[in-house]
Amino acid sequence: MTETALQSKRNQLRQWRQRIDQVVNGSETSVARRFDVILIAVILASVVAVMLESIEPVNVRHHILLHTLEWGFTLIFTIEYTLRLYSSPAPLAYARSFYGIVDLMAVLPTYISVLIPGAQALIVVRLLRIMRVFRVLKLASYTTAGEDLVRALRKGGRTIVVFLVAIFALAITLGSLIYLIEGAENGFDSIPRSVYWAIVTLTTVGYGDISPQTPLGQLLAAVIMVLGYAIIVVWAGIISSHLASKKGTSTIFMCVTCGDSTSHTEARYCRRCGTPLQSE
Amino acid sequence: MTETALQSKRNQLRQWRQRIDQVVNGSETSVARRFDVILIAVILASVVAVMLESIEPVNVRHHILLHTLEWGFTLIFTIEYTLRLYSSPAPLAYARSFYGIVDLMAVLPTYISVLIPGAQALIVVRLLRIMRVFRVLKLASYTTAGEDLVRALRKGGRTIVVFLVAIFALAITLGSLIYLIEGAENGFDSIPRSVYWAIVTLTTVGYGDISPQTPLGQLLAAVIMVLGYAIIVVWAGIISSHLASKKGTSTIFMCVTCGDSTSHTEARYCRRCGTPLQSE
Amino acid sequence: MTETALQSKRNQLRQWRQRIDQVVNGSETSVARRFDVILIAVILASVVAVMLESIEPVNVRHHILLHTLEWGFTLIFTIEYTLRLYSSPAPLAYARSFYGIVDLMAVLPTYISVLIPGAQALIVVRLLRIMRVFRVLKLASYTTAGEDLVRALRKGGRTIVVFLVAIFALAITLGSLIYLIEGAENGFDSIPRSVYWAIVTLTTVGYGDISPQTPLGQLLAAVIMVLGYAIIVVWAGIISSHLASKKGTSTIFMCVTCGDSTSHTEARYCRRCGTPLQSE
Amino acid sequence: MTETALQSKRNQLRQWRQRIDQVVNGSETSVARRFDVILIAVILASVVAVMLESIEPVNVRHHILLHTLEWGFTLIFTIEYTLRLYSSPAPLAYARSFYGIVDLMAVLPTYISVLIPGAQALIVVRLLRIMRVFRVLKLASYTTAGEDLVRALRKGGRTIVVFLVAIFALAITLGSLIYLIEGAENGFDSIPRSVYWAIVTLTTVGYGDISPQTPLGQLLAAVIMVLGYAIIVVWAGIISSHLASKKGTSTIFMCVTCGDSTSHTEARYCRRCGTPLQSE
Repeated sequence: MTETALQSKRNQLRQWRQRIDQVVNGSETSVARRFDVILIAVILASVVAVMLESIEPVNVRHHILLHTLEWGFTLIFTIEYTLRLYSSPAPLAYARSFYGIVDLMAVLPTYISVLIPGAQALIVVRLLRIMRVFRVLKLASYTTAGEDLVRALRKGGRTIVVFLVAIFALAITLGSLIYLIEGAENGFDSIPRSVYWAIVTLTTVGYGDISPQTPLGQLLAAVIMVLGYAIIVVWAGIISSHLASKKGTSTIFMCVTCGDSTSHTEARYCRRCGTPLQSE
Repeated sequence: MTETALQSKRNQLRQWRQRIDQVVNGSETSVARRFDVILIAVILASVVAVMLESIEPVNVRHHILLHTLEWGFTLIFTIEYTLRLYSSPAPLAYARSFYGIVDLMAVLPTYISVLIPGAQALIVVRLLRIMRVFRVLKLASYTTAGEDLVRALRKGGRTIVVFLVAIFALAITLGSLIYLIEGAENGFDSIPRSVYWAIVTLTTVGYGDISPQTPLGQLLAAVIMVLGYAIIVVWAGIISSHLASKKGTSTIFMCVTCGDSTSHTEARYCRRCGTPLQSE
Repeated sequence: MTETALQSKRNQLRQWRQRIDQVVNGSETSVARRFDVILIAVILASVVAVMLESIEPVNVRHHILLHTLEWGFTLIFTIEYTLRLYSSPAPLAYARSFYGIVDLMAVLPTYISVLIPGAQALIVVRLLRIMRVFRVLKLASYTTAGEDLVRALRKGGRTIVVFLVAIFALAITLGSLIYLIEGAENGFDSIPRSVYWAIVTLTTVGYGDISPQTPLGQLLAAVIMVLGYAIIVVWAGIISSHLASKKGTSTIFMCVTCGDSTSHTEARYCRRCGTPLQSE
Repeated sequence: MTETALQSKRNQLRQWRQRIDQVVNGSETSVARRFDVILIAVILASVVAVMLESIEPVNVRHHILLHTLEWGFTLIFTIEYTLRLYSSPAPLAYARSFYGIVDLMAVLPTYISVLIPGAQALIVVRLLRIMRVFRVLKLASYTTAGEDLVRALRKGGRTIVVFLVAIFALAITLGSLIYLIEGAENGFDSIPRSVYWAIVTLTTVGYGDISPQTPLGQLLAAVIMVLGYAIIVVWAGIISSHLASKKGTSTIFMCVTCGDSTSHTEARYCRRCGTPLQSE
């Protein structure tokens, strides 16, 4: 084999790799988009299969079918994982990345179940396959919406932490109050259980597995409900006014010629008179 | 019959058609508005009658009355449908349109019930008559509010899809966790059922038909509730800041030089390269 | 008695009337403010007394005390009503106004109960006294907040009507679907009852008195919950962006000199260059 | 001992005090930050211990351990309280302040329990230790978010009061209506209980411990739910548009000529009379 033949084979291999990468990771070509759609379908089907397996009567009756399906899905995901590893320009970095681990976790449980049979916890790990849907969606240009959420969480981070601490502190205080008022005979037999009830009430979930029986307890419950209701509303207002105001207040540019000001971060020229802007 | 007589008769017919169209589809004349009000009343009455028919004791006692009413409503709707078909400038297009099909579905079940008696599913089809209220409301200038909703859904579409996928993925993850923690003896006897419980809790509905009994399960439940509560609030904030910021995007300016686009109504020069902008 | 004496007496009477009016309807003087506070206390006490009366054991034990209190409150409200009638510049207009009728309804039931004893519905009428708190609050400069709510309801009126119709139409459609899926053996024994359940679920109330038992029913329930959850969020966003945008878009003024535009309704001069503005 | 020795010792003591103050109250040095983290951990651990103590079986089995832990926590908090008192520039002012009292309340119950054993109410007082977390969080620069909440509550104060009064008045009216409709045989045996149910429903909590059984009662319940749902949404919109519009009022310009005030940051001339404005 001459060097040029080797070179051309190497080139061919590189082209193959790039083509696989385009299909597996990209979303520009029609093949890649079809691959994404099929992958989402397979992921959802495998999640449904795992969920059905957990229903005792279904599992007993269709055991062989579900078992076969599970190995089929595992095979498909194993091939996909191998292709991703192979086509990746940095296989190790991919294997260590968040989605690399999720991809591995999607196939490992089935192989492990051969060695350690009957481990129920493996079912849950298998359900983590649902996370893989996010990756595909991300590719399909849904990034903006996802980033929006992440940015909102990061921006409103402190408000959210303060809010969560406040909710839990409120729940502990109100829960111990109701524990004193109602007592064990009405179902409030410990403070943790009463705090659990207070959270159930504050968040307006309201299971009704425990509910106050004495008039005083019902009065306190009514106050807690209205409080929870008011917290939702006020807090939603704060967050949304926060998001609205933080959208543009990063840097303000002032035009020297006409005095017009803009808060758009990419602005380089005054939108009214065309004078170049300088950031302050 | 001379040609002019035929012509005048044809004219008369056309006038009749237009008058019917004005009454049936319009809302300008006082007759049309009265027609709308009567139609809504008849639709609501027919819906109430169908609902009453489904109550076993009521149906047994007032069977003949309800039966007669049903045929009365069907007759009225059949006449209305015929008039709409007749007065429409494009009868076929109307028959194929969304409301055309809804109108047909409002009368068909009763006729079919003569051929195939006792089909319970037909009751539900008959209830679709409630959709016809929207058409009448639409005519009565409620369009803006409805369009507002549709526009909001379209604009926030991606955010909503990401949110729904996230909610379901979260519900599956949390549901399988609680399935491991609580197990079948506390009512969480399969993953689908546990996921159902997780959705009941995340959305703060909280039926209480299944509820966690172990301390660890209640702790997880408390976390899920606060999470669901926080998601409502943060997401409402994102959507409303989204809607607020997107309100001004009626005219979009595109820079010929650098391709940057701005939605600021006062922009006269490209904020990136200083080229004068032209509105489209 | 001379004419001047009569005149002075008439003047004295008029002064008395005005002083009573100041105390009863005003909130400027310290006496008027003290009157408001006492009145609110009496109203709340009377409401509490009526509520206690409805608790059977309490009513049996403290019947005479509650009876005496009721007559005491009725006497106080009768005097107040007489004073309002007397001090009003237009007694008939007051008697016919909303609060005039509420004031009369606050005292009538007790007098009627002498003639027609044991009418339970009169208790509820007596509870309408709580409405009188609003009048006093209104006087005490809480007008703005109340007007805010009313304005919001009026502005968002159409959106709210469309939303309510949509909620009910959705509930009827989903309720009849679940009626087909679950059937009478799982508690969904009629369409009205199923529609009631759909509303309980859509609004995230979730009593749990009826809940789906079949897997398909639970799936539909999960979809309804997430739908209800999403509607809250999207709708809250629409309303708040509506309120925010409608705050200032009534009239837009454009400055002829510098091209600056303002939406402030009271603006008469350009805020940037001082040129007088003309409304369009 | 010479005077300089005394002086140097006094200086040393003052330095000690300042150093303690820096660690205990500050958050600039790394020691102070580590102190904050440890303190939060101890507070949370003590809260968890108190909560565990209230669970009867746990308390019986681990009584000695929990008892020892309680005294350990009390000792740590006593030392901390003494250090705060000692290092404070105004010990009396600290002792009288909100957090001074909370700090004292964190240690007193354990000492009192020696004198008066078995007082259950002391457990709740001990749980108030959770309030101390806020102080530490406050130091750690979370002030802004907390202040945001307080400012929102203060700004929207009147709206919130009107809203709460409206909710309670609505609950009383609707509760007494349902009391008339359903009556004692369906669980609505008194007006207070029915009002409690109305609040449970309006706030979308929905325990399901009491729920309407008659068709009319279920219709009213459906109306109440949709009402509660609508109130959340409309009110959230009002609050957030309120917050958004009030955000820009940092600088207010007052016209010297006509007394008109504007908060628009770009305003240079009075919009009413054209007089040039001066910022304050």
